Amino acid sequence: MSNSFFEYPMKNRKLRMGMVGGGPGAFIGNVHRIAARLDGQIELVCGAFSSDPLKSVEAGKSLFLSENRVYGSYEEMILKEKNLPENERMDFISIVTPNHVHFGPAKMALENGFDVVCDKPLSFSLEEAVELKKIVEETGRLFCLTHNYTGYPMVRQAKAMVNAGVLGEIRKVVVEYPQGWLSTFLENEGQKQAAWRTDPSRSGKAGCIGDIGTHAENLAEFITGLEIDELAADLTTFVAGRKLDDDGTVLLRFKGGAKGVLMASQISVGEENNLKIRIYGEKAGLEWLQTEPNSLLVKHLDKPMETYRAGGNNGYLFGESTSASRLPAGHPEGYLEAFANLYREFAQVMRLKSEGLPFAINFPTVEDGLRGMKFINAVVASSEKNAAWVKM
Amino acid sequence: MSNSFFEYPMKNRKLRMGMVGGGPGAFIGNVHRIAARLDGQIELVCGAFSSDPLKSVEAGKSLFLSENRVYGSYEEMILKEKNLPENERMDFISIVTPNHVHFGPAKMALENGFDVVCDKPLSFSLEEAVELKKIVEETGRLFCLTHNYTGYPMVRQAKAMVNAGVLGEIRKVVVEYPQGWLSTFLENEGQKQAAWRTDPSRSGKAGCIGDIGTHAENLAEFITGLEIDELAADLTTFVAGRKLDDDGTVLLRFKGGAKGVLMASQISVGEENNLKIRIYGEKAGLEWLQTEPNSLLVKHLDKPMETYRAGGNNGYLFGESTSASRLPAGHPEGYLEAFANLYREFAQVMRLKSEGLPFAINFPTVEDGLRGMKFINAVVASSEKNAAWVKM
Amino acid sequence: MSNSFFEYPMKNRKLRMGMVGGGPGAFIGNVHRIAARLDGQIELVCGAFSSDPLKSVEAGKSLFLSENRVYGSYEEMILKEKNLPENERMDFISIVTPNHVHFGPAKMALENGFDVVCDKPLSFSLEEAVELKKIVEETGRLFCLTHNYTGYPMVRQAKAMVNAGVLGEIRKVVVEYPQGWLSTFLENEGQKQAAWRTDPSRSGKAGCIGDIGTHAENLAEFITGLEIDELAADLTTFVAGRKLDDDGTVLLRFKGGAKGVLMASQISVGEENNLKIRIYGEKAGLEWLQTEPNSLLVKHLDKPMETYRAGGNNGYLFGESTSASRLPAGHPEGYLEAFANLYREFAQVMRLKSEGLPFAINFPTVEDGLRGMKFINAVVASSEKNAAWVKM
Amino acid sequence: MSNSFFEYPMKNRKLRMGMVGGGPGAFIGNVHRIAARLDGQIELVCGAFSSDPLKSVEAGKSLFLSENRVYGSYEEMILKEKNLPENERMDFISIVTPNHVHFGPAKMALENGFDVVCDKPLSFSLEEAVELKKIVEETGRLFCLTHNYTGYPMVRQAKAMVNAGVLGEIRKVVVEYPQGWLSTFLENEGQKQAAWRTDPSRSGKAGCIGDIGTHAENLAEFITGLEIDELAADLTTFVAGRKLDDDGTVLLRFKGGAKGVLMASQISVGEENNLKIRIYGEKAGLEWLQTEPNSLLVKHLDKPMETYRAGGNNGYLFGESTSASRLPAGHPEGYLEAFANLYREFAQVMRLKSEGLPFAINFPTVEDGLRGMKFINAVVASSEKNAAWVKM
Repeated sequence: MSNSFFEYPMKNRKLRMGMVGGGPGAFIGNVHRIAARLDGQIELVCGAFSSDPLKSVEAGKSLFLSENRVYGSYEEMILKEKNLPENERMDFISIVTPNHVHFGPAKMALENGFDVVCDKPLSFSLEEAVELKKIVEETGRLFCLTHNYTGYPMVRQAKAMVNAGVLGEIRKVVVEYPQGWLSTFLENEGQKQAAWRTDPSRSGKAGCIGDIGTHAENLAEFITGLEIDELAADLTTFVAGRKLDDDGTVLLRFKGGAKGVLMASQISVGEENNLKIRIYGEKAGLEWLQTEPNSLLVKHLDKPMETYRAGGNNGYLFGESTSASRLPAGHPEGYLEAFANLYREFAQVMRLKSEGLPFAINFPTVEDGLRGMKFINAVVASSEKNAAWVKM
Repeated sequence: MSNSFFEYPMKNRKLRMGMVGGGPGAFIGNVHRIAARLDGQIELVCGAFSSDPLKSVEAGKSLFLSENRVYGSYEEMILKEKNLPENERMDFISIVTPNHVHFGPAKMALENGFDVVCDKPLSFSLEEAVELKKIVEETGRLFCLTHNYTGYPMVRQAKAMVNAGVLGEIRKVVVEYPQGWLSTFLENEGQKQAAWRTDPSRSGKAGCIGDIGTHAENLAEFITGLEIDELAADLTTFVAGRKLDDDGTVLLRFKGGAKGVLMASQISVGEENNLKIRIYGEKAGLEWLQTEPNSLLVKHLDKPMETYRAGGNNGYLFGESTSASRLPAGHPEGYLEAFANLYREFAQVMRLKSEGLPFAINFPTVEDGLRGMKFINAVVASSEKNAAWVKM
Repeated sequence: MSNSFFEYPMKNRKLRMGMVGGGPGAFIGNVHRIAARLDGQIELVCGAFSSDPLKSVEAGKSLFLSENRVYGSYEEMILKEKNLPENERMDFISIVTPNHVHFGPAKMALENGFDVVCDKPLSFSLEEAVELKKIVEETGRLFCLTHNYTGYPMVRQAKAMVNAGVLGEIRKVVVEYPQGWLSTFLENEGQKQAAWRTDPSRSGKAGCIGDIGTHAENLAEFITGLEIDELAADLTTFVAGRKLDDDGTVLLRFKGGAKGVLMASQISVGEENNLKIRIYGEKAGLEWLQTEPNSLLVKHLDKPMETYRAGGNNGYLFGESTSASRLPAGHPEGYLEAFANLYREFAQVMRLKSEGLPFAINFPTVEDGLRGMKFINAVVASSEKNAAWVKM
Repeated sequence: MSNSFFEYPMKNRKLRMGMVGGGPGAFIGNVHRIAARLDGQIELVCGAFSSDPLKSVEAGKSLFLSENRVYGSYEEMILKEKNLPENERMDFISIVTPNHVHFGPAKMALENGFDVVCDKPLSFSLEEAVELKKIVEETGRLFCLTHNYTGYPMVRQAKAMVNAGVLGEIRKVVVEYPQGWLSTFLENEGQKQAAWRTDPSRSGKAGCIGDIGTHAENLAEFITGLEIDELAADLTTFVAGRKLDDDGTVLLRFKGGAKGVLMASQISVGEENNLKIRIYGEKAGLEWLQTEPNSLLVKHLDKPMETYRAGGNNGYLFGESTSASRLPAGHPEGYLEAFANLYREFAQVMRLKSEGLPFAINFPTVEDGLRGMKFINAVVASSEKNAAWVKM
């Protein structure tokens, strides 16, 4: 297993993170903080946690930050941090705001010399995504999009098995992300998470498909290495009064001939976060489920199904998987550890890059973010045309 | 639980069955015989087991039949049995041949006064199905189509719960039937089951969608009571040389506004007969899986998921379910018992009808068979039009 | 898979069964009848179904028996059947009465030339068991004790794997049979099954340990081929007023050095019939659970766990397993099919023996029954001595 | 769910931890560090990581510690830290060494004014445990023993349900901890973890029973609130050459009449860390399994089994459970989060105590450690007397 604390001896300090968003009442902000902190490579040094300055101060206090490192806006944070001495100022920012506030801080941070970690989807619109990708290329900065499910050890194992040809040519991909939490008109009851995710002015043109459908799309392309070529989508808004889709099914055709189906739903009552993927090749199949993330089912033509288990000590796994585990098999790791893997790898790449050493990027980047936005656009376009095929 | 042997005291003899098909090498014939025999209500008295007379005789001998009750053709069987004394001749026939030999014996049996049990799909073509339905209506005979999955106790429970309003209005149906056994070009290796199922001259215009897709379609409509209004289908033949589809995904729109997706596949390597259905309503959801058929998962908005368990002794189940069990909970019943439930109910209805008593039909009928053929036709038509919506 | 109807061409008739017990209100009687009937090798021709003659007649009528083959007592049945012409009289009897009425009919049947199938445990007392074994040996008749769990295809697979050395030397056996149905004082509420099973005058000196503990003991010895050498047992009666144990835990030491633990309980509230066995050898381990009987988990030192699946078509299984399946993998078989396997094998051995052909006995016999009675005696003796070690 | 970062606003700094042990090659040291760090309440400021000074320095560097806070021994660390200014010196120590080096640093830390977190089992011998408990009482310092499984949200839920009377009076407890990693003579192959755990001079008088049996014992007493009164144990060393037990089964009798069985094994080949507990009361039963820690099965007499799911947002859970979750249901938390809960609660109690505020202790303490040592002693004594009953 990854004996993590001997892998990063390149610099004698933790990397310094500034955060945009994640104030009181936020969900994903705390997740990012735990993920960043978990492996001891990163420390939070500053933040613009809320558009409400009082809330930002309250958050900073709870997080034991110096008062002078808590800012009223991301603009202020970026400008002031830039002017701090090199041995003090933040190294990168983490953006954990709703979708409509991804582009602004990302662009400004990149253009002012800071690397960026950003929550998904990449942006509010496809146009923003295209421009962000350009800015990343121009500035040469690092950009990590937190499609956190790619950080799970058994997702890494799945990808490595596909790469190694264990499945043969891939024929069929079934990926689904059912949730039930929006089965009622929750956004009308003052639930903050429901409110922004169903609001086109903050979430963008898609609801369910943008919020969790993109995770499914990303997972399918991450593991298989295949690109969706065209799709046909049927989106629905089941809850009266809701402004965006809360359910969608998408027929997929991949480049090279594989086919698939993607289901995302927030009205599948009783489902939690049951992201699941099944991949069938000529020779073998794989099945992985987020709620039991430490198992990967491997299916064969003529022999019994195998249950591969995550664990740093499991010699039959690929290194891509064991290096993503902190524990031996049977001690379950979960969502936070998978999320932390992205931060850990981001930190490692920052160090390697800063020292001019070679590095490989395993975490999702702005490219993945751009594909996600193209996916959203294609799905919405197809659904508006009664599930006609649309190129992605 | 159903104390089965006190439920049928109406006549003092077993019902007599004649069989068409099911000779050496057949799969489903033996299943039908076990199912018919299991509850002690039916005895096999005659058969035309094969188009090869020697094989038919061989089968009859193994089944301890009198030589004079083993026939060379279904035509011979029907005519000769008709002329036997009433207290000797068969009461009904069971048709277990490939699809292209369903219509002939069914029509002839019905028109000669015999009730019919027939394997699915109903017929080779939609035209035959339409005509068969007409003949059933005209003759007033009983007709049971063995969509055997409807016989499972927990499928009955699911249907009863939907009827009782436990789910509220249904929004979403996900039904799938993945198999992997046709992942290779098996029909080219002399495998009899593969050969006829992939042969358009025996199977009809659909392969996978006809063979198992119709089971999925039937199950969805059986449990929900909803009718598919229109569908958009993407069929594929993945295995080179194969003449019919071996994989298909179908977007569903039900009358009344519910939506769904149906997946059928015979190239999902490593999958067995994993027929699974998930139904989500406004208030609750259900999940059932054929490979663990004695459990029904019931999902709620605000309380823990429940695992309903089949068993004649489980007081919390509806009578529709307990009457379909022979054992207390925890002693698993399976595929054969579910299949036998159709035969048991068919026998019971035959008795009630013969005595002029009122009866209700729970088993699938020629109507279900006709819907199945319409489904096949619509799916193939849609797929030929690049997944355009087609009315069913 | 076992294409069962071509395996028994040795005689041109079904074997004829007489039944003792199994009248109205019985549970296991109907199970035996279904099991006997399922494969079409056996027909019920007569019975003494109840000590109440009216009830016996009622049962016979429901079972479509001739009135003159329904008897008022097992003595009458054995004597009268013996005097019937050979081509009419029963071939064997099936004893499905409470424990205190096993010995009488078994002894009489054996001594009058009939083979015997008998429900477990073998007898009311160890003394009866010793004598029965002697009678079987003296008469040379066939005797099958229906430890039905040994009939499951994956139990057969487990036994074959142990025999083949897949596990290496066995170290540890954990076998358990938890039920919850006697969590309350059910025998006081007129429940017939509870009444006799908790009554020392009908059940014998043990309650839970005799009723289901013996199944666990038999399963452990059947699969492993090991014999329990000594044991230490702690029995308890948790429900006030109950006359026999309703829970017990037993430390096991096998000949050869393996160890184990056996748990049986009828107060494990919410448990159904969760018979489960885990076996660990030097090289591999096995796990099997009755409620999911078609899977066998195979565990290894250095590679992923495998899920072996029952199914006549699964080429990686031993013939001992595939021959016990009637269906391909994924179509679940259950308790009744496992039970039927014992009857089918019993019938096959009867035929082979009658024709002077060689045969092997896979079903449990009077020897297994005797071991079960020794087990009960040792457990009760140990518990009375505060869990001291007692030789079995 | 626990919005953790607003719960600890009592002091404006993180608590400072010093560590004893956990150098290169250690397993549990890194676990403690992640757990301490995860919620952002604690920072590692110093350590004596190894008895080899060079290794200690290497560890300190990797952990970004100042060189002058890396010590060559725990004695040096405690003495030097004590002399640092109050706003700089460590607040407590974390002891993550093998068992024979628990007592020394714990005693010295307590007597020099430091609170203590210590890995389990409490000590090398019962005598040490008794003395440690006395020292804790005399010094009034806080002491947390990291029986980390008590930190799981669903273990907390189970305990709360027992407390609330959901189960009624408890009758039966089945707790097991099977592992397979010591199925071979691993300690002979230079595996460091195997080496000390099987070495009586470092581990104490028990092997498997001390290493994981104590976890099982603690979990059973933690959830049920019952105390083991007496026990009968059968320990075995299956692997030739091994110096301590690698397998044990223990019959349990609790004060008040409940019974149970505890199994611990390190030769159960193929098992990982499958700690599992089942508890049966008069009215309901519970089942929890470490490898799927976010589910708690709740079993009833007359209604379907429920699957309670961990998640801060699950309104049907007790507060004791939701406060131990960081995420909504369906985003799995695991071993590290459960471990971190102990550190988080320890930190919270340290703060409350330091401010003179009332506090409740949920984490295991020196009392639990003493019970664990009594358990080890009783088990070994019983086994030496051929599984005679021994009072605990």
